[in-house]
Amino acid sequence: MITRMSSLFLRTLREDPADAEVPSHRLLVRAGYVRRVAPGGYSWLPLGLRVLRRIEAVVREEMDAIGAQEIQFPALLPKEPYEATGRWTEYGPSVFRLKDRKGADYLLGPTHEELFALTVKGEYSSYKDYPVILYQIQTKYRDEARPRAGLLRGREFVMKDSYSFDLGDEGLARSYRLHRDAYLRIFDRLGLDYVVVAATSGAMGGSASEEFLAVAQTGEDTYVRSTESDYAANVEAVATPAPPEQPIEGKPQAQVHYTPDTPTIETLVDFLNAAEIGRTFTAADTLKNVLVKTRNPGEREWRLLGIGVPGDREVDMKRLEASLEPAEVALLEEADFAANPFLVKGYIGPGALAANGVRYLVDPRVVRGSAWVTGADKPDHHVVDLVCGRDFTPDGTIEAAEVREGDASPDGKGTLVSARGIEIGHIFQLGRKYTDAFEVDALGPDSKPVRITMGSYGIGVSRLVAAIAEQHHDDLGLVWPRSVAPADVHVVVAGKDEAVAQGGERIAEELAGRGVSVLLDDRKATPGVKFADAELIGVPTIVVVGRGLAKGVVEVKDRASGNRDEVAVDEVVTHLVELVKA
Amino acid sequence: MITRMSSLFLRTLREDPADAEVPSHRLLVRAGYVRRVAPGGYSWLPLGLRVLRRIEAVVREEMDAIGAQEIQFPALLPKEPYEATGRWTEYGPSVFRLKDRKGADYLLGPTHEELFALTVKGEYSSYKDYPVILYQIQTKYRDEARPRAGLLRGREFVMKDSYSFDLGDEGLARSYRLHRDAYLRIFDRLGLDYVVVAATSGAMGGSASEEFLAVAQTGEDTYVRSTESDYAANVEAVATPAPPEQPIEGKPQAQVHYTPDTPTIETLVDFLNAAEIGRTFTAADTLKNVLVKTRNPGEREWRLLGIGVPGDREVDMKRLEASLEPAEVALLEEADFAANPFLVKGYIGPGALAANGVRYLVDPRVVRGSAWVTGADKPDHHVVDLVCGRDFTPDGTIEAAEVREGDASPDGKGTLVSARGIEIGHIFQLGRKYTDAFEVDALGPDSKPVRITMGSYGIGVSRLVAAIAEQHHDDLGLVWPRSVAPADVHVVVAGKDEAVAQGGERIAEELAGRGVSVLLDDRKATPGVKFADAELIGVPTIVVVGRGLAKGVVEVKDRASGNRDEVAVDEVVTHLVELVKA
Repeated sequence: MITRMSSLFLRTLREDPADAEVPSHRLLVRAGYVRRVAPGGYSWLPLGLRVLRRIEAVVREEMDAIGAQEIQFPALLPKEPYEATGRWTEYGPSVFRLKDRKGADYLLGPTHEELFALTVKGEYSSYKDYPVILYQIQTKYRDEARPRAGLLRGREFVMKDSYSFDLGDEGLARSYRLHRDAYLRIFDRLGLDYVVVAATSGAMGGSASEEFLAVAQTGEDTYVRSTESDYAANVEAVATPAPPEQPIEGKPQAQVHYTPDTPTIETLVDFLNAAEIGRTFTAADTLKNVLVKTRNPGEREWRLLGIGVPGDREVDMKRLEASLEPAEVALLEEADFAANPFLVKGYIGPGALAANGVRYLVDPRVVRGSAWVTGADKPDHHVVDLVCGRDFTPDGTIEAAEVREGDASPDGKGTLVSARGIEIGHIFQLGRKYTDAFEVDALGPDSKPVRITMGSYGIGVSRLVAAIAEQHHDDLGLVWPRSVAPADVHVVVAGKDEAVAQGGERIAEELAGRGVSVLLDDRKATPGVKFADAELIGVPTIVVVGRGLAKGVVEVKDRASGNRDEVAVDEVVTHLVELVKA
Repeated sequence: MITRMSSLFLRTLREDPADAEVPSHRLLVRAGYVRRVAPGGYSWLPLGLRVLRRIEAVVREEMDAIGAQEIQFPALLPKEPYEATGRWTEYGPSVFRLKDRKGADYLLGPTHEELFALTVKGEYSSYKDYPVILYQIQTKYRDEARPRAGLLRGREFVMKDSYSFDLGDEGLARSYRLHRDAYLRIFDRLGLDYVVVAATSGAMGGSASEEFLAVAQTGEDTYVRSTESDYAANVEAVATPAPPEQPIEGKPQAQVHYTPDTPTIETLVDFLNAAEIGRTFTAADTLKNVLVKTRNPGEREWRLLGIGVPGDREVDMKRLEASLEPAEVALLEEADFAANPFLVKGYIGPGALAANGVRYLVDPRVVRGSAWVTGADKPDHHVVDLVCGRDFTPDGTIEAAEVREGDASPDGKGTLVSARGIEIGHIFQLGRKYTDAFEVDALGPDSKPVRITMGSYGIGVSRLVAAIAEQHHDDLGLVWPRSVAPADVHVVVAGKDEAVAQGGERIAEELAGRGVSVLLDDRKATPGVKFADAELIGVPTIVVVGRGLAKGVVEVKDRASGNRDEVAVDEVVTHLVELVKA
């Protein structure tokens, strides 16, 4: 196939778009792959659509290879199934909702667990029918609070979502493994540098869950990995190793100290160390109590929640939110403090929380027998040697404290370093949340019903276009991997000479005849403009047909390395076919 | 490719779905191609998705062949462009509207003229850039008042919509012709029996417009064609031939007659013919005045409108609505008559309408000089010999009267016969409605701006699945044309014998190796069940591997004709490859 730039609906831009924060956004717009239509909504111009379709094809091939079957659901979905599982409420403002002309409620599907579960229930009835894996490659919608970075966080986007249905946990584990392996093959074929990290499962419910992150400084997800093992996890999913419990006997009695003007951890530690208590304190010896309020989906009332973390760490709101999902979390406002006078700002302790029925969750490091310096619930007073399990009893633990580089790896091997990535895939062992909601059963061999167990697996197909671009570009433009490039070869006609034009045309036609897709720059433009556009567009191999043609040679340039070779015009087609098919 | 029915996500149904009104709906559900998810919303199961994709591929090939370039827009679109053209209002309740979390207005795109015009304006600037044809194959939305007949009238559906942009009328005519020819090739390749009819352009604006209708008794569109020419038109688009004007001089004076108890045309004609006026009257001599009210988009107030048609014809509401689009039309209610006492039910005449400022439009047959019997605006009175142009002057003509079989063809050749069809394509010469709204200009060779002219062209891709099924089925099930069938060959393993199973498997594998797609019925089911499913599913060629295998033969059955041939097992693959590739 030959695509002639003289008629291609493509205009490259010299200027970066004003709203572009990241290289992929900047370059995909400048090179004419996409255009913004609305916040988080993009149109795909011809070259962009080709890259998207090539990625879809890779995803489809690998899904088909694990026996997954492609189907397709509407994007406009009735409320009822989502109400049955509670997600109509849980999604809150992040789902687009609308009413039809009769006033019936609909949503634009952000993900389709409900519909797939209902469909399998509708078609299948016997244990002999299972297992089954179904998938779709479909346009999805989320009303993101902050659509950003072009295709990286859109409000309308293309996803591959698949769902496995198994008779039992072993089957689910197998379906999960099949997906995991397929995802590795997909991301390898797409030329991505990525990591697989342990993940929380968020609003999806379920247990085992991993994320695939494309390594990128511009990514929204922070993950950590061990310096000495293959442990890697989304920061939200890092489980803090708890130290051993300590004997309570022999611990000094808790003592309240007058600690004037010590509303911060730093002022408190300095005060204590100056007060000649006979010990040296660090921030890690203090217990910082942070008050938030939470609200479950569908509830109107907020409830107070106390979070206790070692004083040398901040509360990480994303980790806190992930731990509390699907509940909402908000910081307290002045009105909340006014309504709850037992909360003495800067001096809150476990005592007042317990006395006033406020739920109190602590960092896993706050184990039974550990002693802490913490607030004494009155201004300018702290208590020292408040022992967990003796002087206070938390309602449980919570992962809310920040994770830091240098922290011990949860698997006991090495320490953590952190990096950023773009979430490109997510696999979940959902379990029976949805099949319970809809009573999806198979009649077993003993005529008893077997509740089906589900997995849910997503790939952000349109986001992959941007993720690949983030990893494959340089200062001059995009540098596509061969597997997804909008063309195999970019033939640049460099010169006004008729012979040069004919030479380019002939090479393009011969290549097309051999099954190579060609982007042919047959425009009336200067060689300089054409070279710059070729670098910007990023087809992996550029053939320059120019002055050398008279000597029987053309230039073959590798876009990634910048290497240029002169190749005899008689041999160039064979050379390129070998290069492309390699 | 081999699709094994033992694991295919497919369960055929013995019973017709309760809501199925038409054969395509009934059979596509029974054969497991689609499932209903919401009113007018269907999921595509594996076989259905394949047929849809094959149709898409045919459409894509023919669009690419005329140089159209594929792009893709979001379905979720901001209000502003549609407000600029007035369509945000004109669409009324037939478009899905929603607000995002910030309260901004969006719609789910029913058609994308605005976005394409804006995009071309954004990329192109010079006359050298034109012409260009762009298209997308995309999910679209309309909040139909009465979604019905399965895929035939859905609320979420797949359309191919393309748009041409030309410098002038000649270019537009050429782009229109390119589309018309491409559509003929597409519908021919899809095996459809169809007609091309003149059409009204409705809310789209513009002038020249034709519809492609798949001939089907179950179709929603009524069209007429001439018995003696190639004239064909959507009923809404039939232009009534006007008779010649008549001289007013010499016409008898208008006379009011007391015509008690003649509120209907029939009673009136009988009365007049019994009254010895000296002439014989027919219903065609009377002028029936029908009052409706209309409201323009965005207006709150209704306005009265009088419609005068010959008394032998009813007002066809669909024709009337098409003539008045984009205004709404409604019949009068009792309250309207009460509010306008000059409207004397059964005896309304042009006089009272003119006296009270009610706009009055008449059938084209009501020409200057024609004399009519009509209401005299008081109970039990009619006026005879009321002459148009002398005794009353209408505000214009309107196509509102019913079109009947036997009416003269508008092209003067033959008479009209009527038939029903399914709208599968629609082509418009839009002109400059949208480019005017957005000032889409090209800088001409003389450095003066040239206003671009547009065409708009649609194909109902998902509707085509149903339209083809309407034309290609029998009592036993679907009978797909080879170009869109979900598989080339359906291999039925008929028998429990291991040799038979292996024979079927071997034939399927050899076929797949030769590029033939195979649906292999390897289920543990009786031959009777398998045969019935094969008929229902409708793959064009069915191969039965059964008892004959021992004698070295299998049966090859043509689904459409029912013909069966015994073919030697050694030759069957070659035979089938020839059949499929033919």
